[in-house]
Amino acid sequence: MGKLLIVGTVAFDEIETPFGKTDKILGGAATFIGLAASQFEVDSAIVSIVGDDLPEEYLDLLRNKNIDLSGVEIVKGGKTFYWKGKYHNDLNSRDTLATELNTLADFNPVVPDNFKDADIVMLGNLHPNTQMSVIEQMKATPKLIVLDTMNFWMDNALEELEQVIKHIDVITINDAEARQLTDEYSLVKAAEEIQKMGPKYVVIKKGEHGALLFHNEKVFFAPALPLEEVFDPTGAGDTFAGGFSGYLAATDTISFANLKNAVIHGSNLASFCVERFGTRRMQDLKREEVNQRLHQFKTLTQFDIELK
Amino acid sequence: MGKLLIVGTVAFDEIETPFGKTDKILGGAATFIGLAASQFEVDSAIVSIVGDDLPEEYLDLLRNKNIDLSGVEIVKGGKTFYWKGKYHNDLNSRDTLATELNTLADFNPVVPDNFKDADIVMLGNLHPNTQMSVIEQMKATPKLIVLDTMNFWMDNALEELEQVIKHIDVITINDAEARQLTDEYSLVKAAEEIQKMGPKYVVIKKGEHGALLFHNEKVFFAPALPLEEVFDPTGAGDTFAGGFSGYLAATDTISFANLKNAVIHGSNLASFCVERFGTRRMQDLKREEVNQRLHQFKTLTQFDIELK
Repeated sequence: MGKLLIVGTVAFDEIETPFGKTDKILGGAATFIGLAASQFEVDSAIVSIVGDDLPEEYLDLLRNKNIDLSGVEIVKGGKTFYWKGKYHNDLNSRDTLATELNTLADFNPVVPDNFKDADIVMLGNLHPNTQMSVIEQMKATPKLIVLDTMNFWMDNALEELEQVIKHIDVITINDAEARQLTDEYSLVKAAEEIQKMGPKYVVIKKGEHGALLFHNEKVFFAPALPLEEVFDPTGAGDTFAGGFSGYLAATDTISFANLKNAVIHGSNLASFCVERFGTRRMQDLKREEVNQRLHQFKTLTQFDIELK
Repeated sequence: MGKLLIVGTVAFDEIETPFGKTDKILGGAATFIGLAASQFEVDSAIVSIVGDDLPEEYLDLLRNKNIDLSGVEIVKGGKTFYWKGKYHNDLNSRDTLATELNTLADFNPVVPDNFKDADIVMLGNLHPNTQMSVIEQMKATPKLIVLDTMNFWMDNALEELEQVIKHIDVITINDAEARQLTDEYSLVKAAEEIQKMGPKYVVIKKGEHGALLFHNEKVFFAPALPLEEVFDPTGAGDTFAGGFSGYLAATDTISFANLKNAVIHGSNLASFCVERFGTRRMQDLKREEVNQRLHQFKTLTQFDIELK
């Protein structure tokens, strides 16, 4: 059972989709990563910051999944990071209606002592300096450092982002961000360029069009499961990252073959996440459901052509 | 060795992409379908119409691939169908700059006697009435009728299109067209609706995002091979259709498992088509190259997770 260290937001989300809207509900990258990773036999911890306005039941929900929250700072009288967004009809794009950093503005992550030797470090989307600070606190070199980021940091903290990218093993970004980071339209070329920046592995997420894993000359592709209904895409990317890093922490083998499996597990879990608002679907997700859908993934992609 | 009957345009294309432009070159749906199908052991024929302005060498190119052209009417003094288009920078969209129907305006397809018992009929994109006329000329019920179409006919001849769709086994359309035809955004639902209209199998082409095959409750997905360079997408969809129908004609087994293989072969051949202008890459494509890239497809998609 490997140790997984998760860094990212625990937050309030308020979401509107064509199918309905929510009040403030539990959200945040670390939340989704943690819930997804809890599907595997891992010893995981979240490093984050929240205000004391965050209902205790939200924290309990994570604790009940055996996630160590000793690294979550709770600021007395502070307010928790809040994001409000509205999805367009095709669910592929969204408008951010509000972002309140609140306590996140002064976040100095502190890695708990007993996770300074984590096997896998999953750096959720945050300021690159915050991500870097976590790497610097590790006592032993982790087997794998995975970083998720987004275009916001390419626009506003590119130098800092390039700095942290030098120190990681896997980057997960979406296709538009890969193009922005490299000025290459071809994702094959973009992945080559990104590997030169540091990471040995590049995961390019294409939303409903699946995800690509690049490593040297090798490429692997996992489709998104075609669904009758996509209800709310919020957290799908983080759930992917959680499944990916959780599986690797549980299996403890760093190889292209095993990273392929991790991509499949990440895609599989993300396919559940989008079926309900926020964390709803992930909270009570059963192992049997997960396993059953893995069969669907296999049927979806496996073929039997005799090769010459 | 099965018989494959191909109906579609043999045409002049004039193409501009971000990488260059052409004069009038050989194009047309039947051309691309025929070239792709010629990669398999098939006995194929094209039914089409051209003017005598089409260089004899273009027809020889097809004849040299053992494609029977006795069903290609050559109109004396007539002009061949001509299309001119310009691709945008991302190559995912294009503007049609000119369309001259010419001889195609009076096209009455005549199926050669020796192909009225074809095993597979591949109806390339044409007016639905033209496609229907070919079906009506068949003496024996083909093992499989495959129809390709596009949004133009949904806009301008929807009733006729719905009529021909009742009589076919497989439809190949792109994602936007599947949505237009059914008013369903979810491709899973769209494919369900289309199956109710007639075809037992629905292939939804997503360009660089791959292709989906639907049949009852079953779904299969083939990615597009991630390429360093996509040079000219013209003919990729037709090449897919040619690989798909050619493989089925050669293997003579109509089952979901074999249609999955056909989708992979179609995707594989389409990945070559886009590497050069027009038919350039397909003209001299070697079996070894095709087989080698099939290995890449396998590596790209196959994984080994133990399922419970």
